[in-house]
Amino acid sequence: METGRHRPHGLGSAGLGLHVLLCSSLLLNAVFFTRHFLRASPTTTTPRLGDDGLSWALQAAREAEAVAAADCSGHGSVFLDGVAGEDGKPGCECNSCFSGPDCSVRTRNCTADADSGNPLFLEPYWMRHAAASAVVFSGWHRMSYTTTDGRFHSVELDRHIRRLHRAVGNAVVDDKYLVYGSGSAQLINALVYALSPEGNAASPPASVVATVPYYPVYKSQTVMFDGREYRWAGSTATWANNGSRNSTKDFIEFVTSPNNPDSALRKPVLAGSSAIVDRAYYWPHLTHIPAPADEDVMLFTTSKLSGHAGSRFGWALVRDENVAKRAIFYTEQSIMGASRDTQLRILKILKVILANLHSKEDIFAFGYDVMRSRWRRLNAVVSRSSRISLQKIQPQYCTYFKRTKEPSPAYAWVKCEWEEDVDCYETLLAAGIISRSGTLNEAGARYTRVSLLKTQDDFDVLLERITDFVDAEKHSRAPAGSSSI
Amino acid sequence: METGRHRPHGLGSAGLGLHVLLCSSLLLNAVFFTRHFLRASPTTTTPRLGDDGLSWALQAAREAEAVAAADCSGHGSVFLDGVAGEDGKPGCECNSCFSGPDCSVRTRNCTADADSGNPLFLEPYWMRHAAASAVVFSGWHRMSYTTTDGRFHSVELDRHIRRLHRAVGNAVVDDKYLVYGSGSAQLINALVYALSPEGNAASPPASVVATVPYYPVYKSQTVMFDGREYRWAGSTATWANNGSRNSTKDFIEFVTSPNNPDSALRKPVLAGSSAIVDRAYYWPHLTHIPAPADEDVMLFTTSKLSGHAGSRFGWALVRDENVAKRAIFYTEQSIMGASRDTQLRILKILKVILANLHSKEDIFAFGYDVMRSRWRRLNAVVSRSSRISLQKIQPQYCTYFKRTKEPSPAYAWVKCEWEEDVDCYETLLAAGIISRSGTLNEAGARYTRVSLLKTQDDFDVLLERITDFVDAEKHSRAPAGSSSI
Repeated sequence: METGRHRPHGLGSAGLGLHVLLCSSLLLNAVFFTRHFLRASPTTTTPRLGDDGLSWALQAAREAEAVAAADCSGHGSVFLDGVAGEDGKPGCECNSCFSGPDCSVRTRNCTADADSGNPLFLEPYWMRHAAASAVVFSGWHRMSYTTTDGRFHSVELDRHIRRLHRAVGNAVVDDKYLVYGSGSAQLINALVYALSPEGNAASPPASVVATVPYYPVYKSQTVMFDGREYRWAGSTATWANNGSRNSTKDFIEFVTSPNNPDSALRKPVLAGSSAIVDRAYYWPHLTHIPAPADEDVMLFTTSKLSGHAGSRFGWALVRDENVAKRAIFYTEQSIMGASRDTQLRILKILKVILANLHSKEDIFAFGYDVMRSRWRRLNAVVSRSSRISLQKIQPQYCTYFKRTKEPSPAYAWVKCEWEEDVDCYETLLAAGIISRSGTLNEAGARYTRVSLLKTQDDFDVLLERITDFVDAEKHSRAPAGSSSI
Repeated sequence: METGRHRPHGLGSAGLGLHVLLCSSLLLNAVFFTRHFLRASPTTTTPRLGDDGLSWALQAAREAEAVAAADCSGHGSVFLDGVAGEDGKPGCECNSCFSGPDCSVRTRNCTADADSGNPLFLEPYWMRHAAASAVVFSGWHRMSYTTTDGRFHSVELDRHIRRLHRAVGNAVVDDKYLVYGSGSAQLINALVYALSPEGNAASPPASVVATVPYYPVYKSQTVMFDGREYRWAGSTATWANNGSRNSTKDFIEFVTSPNNPDSALRKPVLAGSSAIVDRAYYWPHLTHIPAPADEDVMLFTTSKLSGHAGSRFGWALVRDENVAKRAIFYTEQSIMGASRDTQLRILKILKVILANLHSKEDIFAFGYDVMRSRWRRLNAVVSRSSRISLQKIQPQYCTYFKRTKEPSPAYAWVKCEWEEDVDCYETLLAAGIISRSGTLNEAGARYTRVSLLKTQDDFDVLLERITDFVDAEKHSRAPAGSSSI
């Protein structure tokens, strides 16, 4: 203002215009300059404001972006807590079958590892939603034992879990209590504890059972904890034909629906038993959703919902108050509740999922596309084989997508059909494929589980090995009955 | 360069100088302008670079800083996952005895809650080290089940835990295996499992014991899990005088050193037993360090080291390979390893602690100052009382500070001295102080534990209530033997 009102000496009108422009320009520079350099300094304990208005969070944001910007050729990632190399910095962690400092070297004739249910097929989704899904933890975030429910459960996370179930239509939540665990894995034993007779020497221990083929951890965990109030009692088949209805009342039956390994929707087999229905895979990217699940005790996990297996977060929906209280008591006694760090991170993840439902960025649409494509490609190859076969899954109407959905299962449940292939795991291993033997599910060695959930690199290598295996059939042995043709 | 070499037309030398200056200035404007406005947009999926070179992490950094900037009058905090109010935003969570939207209203005659061992005395330290201790989680951070050791343990975190023990001199780590747990709480049962006879019907169950006064969770957790391979067998006093040395070989003895509740350094009592030595409080802000601890099985936790109780992270140092393997198997079967989110966060916290050791920003010097001051002030008041007394702690030489250290215990172990005060917990409660009854430690109702670890607000209110209580003694009753004076 001062500049405009006092006419400068010794300059014509062109000079005046220039002068005003120059002053404005210099002033603007000064503003930008100030904002640019008065940013947070990583070494001071009282950071100043930066260009983006950032102070203490700036250094961490830069570190995270610098790490994420590393070039791993699309076949690996760098993580903030990666093992530091000689330069003190973490390097690329390469996907299976890739190596080298930037993961650009493809391993020749690499064995396909299709063992674990590692849900990395969703990693690209989170890279696409980088800005919305990032979270900054301050050093003082939730240091306390207690959080917003006065105990160990985040109230906002509880609300968002319920919102998600309502929006997806995969579970009835209104009449259920929520129990958090360090993964749904922890809740397996928490619920066995909660459903077993309370410390009472007069009651016989509950019998923990499941139907073949079942998820092996139900057995291995129950055997490991080996509490006096329960005992692993094997397959439901032993008991279902027992005839005596009364004998079922002390059973705790694990039901996985859709089932791991074969993706079938299942119901409890033993009438009158306490059922723990594991709904880990009951999301629209991995199965059709016929109706909201409404069992008394249901298990869910972020591993198969959002792909966050490493976070170790799962939850149970429990109808009965006393069962819920006992399960919560278990998680409090054993770990004093699921990590509050993880609860914050998962809250952010659920917010992103909710904000994008039924949009073109819907995580279920994304995941379904990936998994359907993998299933189609695998079937196209295996359909040429007489040596191995896959489980049959029909297209079904899905209430979430409001249309018929093609199969998009998490696993291929492979059967070896040739008589001499008595150990299907070994048969595939000889073909360069690591699977998970059906003996672990009590389904016998004729079956083996092949994971389809992993990275695209993993799937691509798997498909190569399977293709080679099927192509080699005609040289291996003609199947029985066709040898004379 | 162009501008300087080609002389512009129609301007004198003053005008030329202005012109050059203007052009430079406008160019600089353009540079700043571009950098300022081409920053990450929260709504785009392909964020652009911002002023600070930030893209996808910017939105999260802003959210975290906006939340942290809220005014809670120094008597509360806002957290990212706080319960959303009507405006959709989380509000202040006030310290005990404060309320109102900005925590500015002090509750009159507020009851002092000195129950839990919530280590919030360290919260101000992390606020002072905001920039260094913040961590940004990308949406795709460590989605995998496996991390840098090929299983569930971060290799960098392992290295930093060992570095810290070596630098502090509080534990010998070189011949030990590391086992992570979801808090040291989880490792209590993991180690009971690991030290119990392996599933062998021929072996009698191990007897799990501790010396009075002991941390109650050893008992409550052992009773809850109730595995067939072990059994809670009460106080060591029952067995120490047994006479038979051979009978001790099946004991698993919990030893807390410094002890919770009374801060005494302790050793196992039963010769030949398997001892689990809980070293949660063996850090220089809470005790003197006479020498590095070197027991076969030791427990540590971030709760009492850095104050991060809500993160749920603890570790065991284990000498025997088979015991370590069994404990790791337990954590893998039960929760598939401690949250990888928490492992990253704790890595950052340990880096900050390590970088500041023996500097003026040393966390142990900070914590020691706070806790010593609290103990001094409490003692000054209680020394005027004949009704209650505190445990006696002598100043001792500390190898970490390289000087004699005054007492700075986590808890006051209060004894009610008057005959009629048979329940010390009730006596303090009547005086407006919530403590934790010594009956829980099997020490009897004459004793009660008062926590000194909480926020400064908590301590200040506690000291007020204790002062009122001691001041009121002369009106309550003259102590026995002095009634005639």
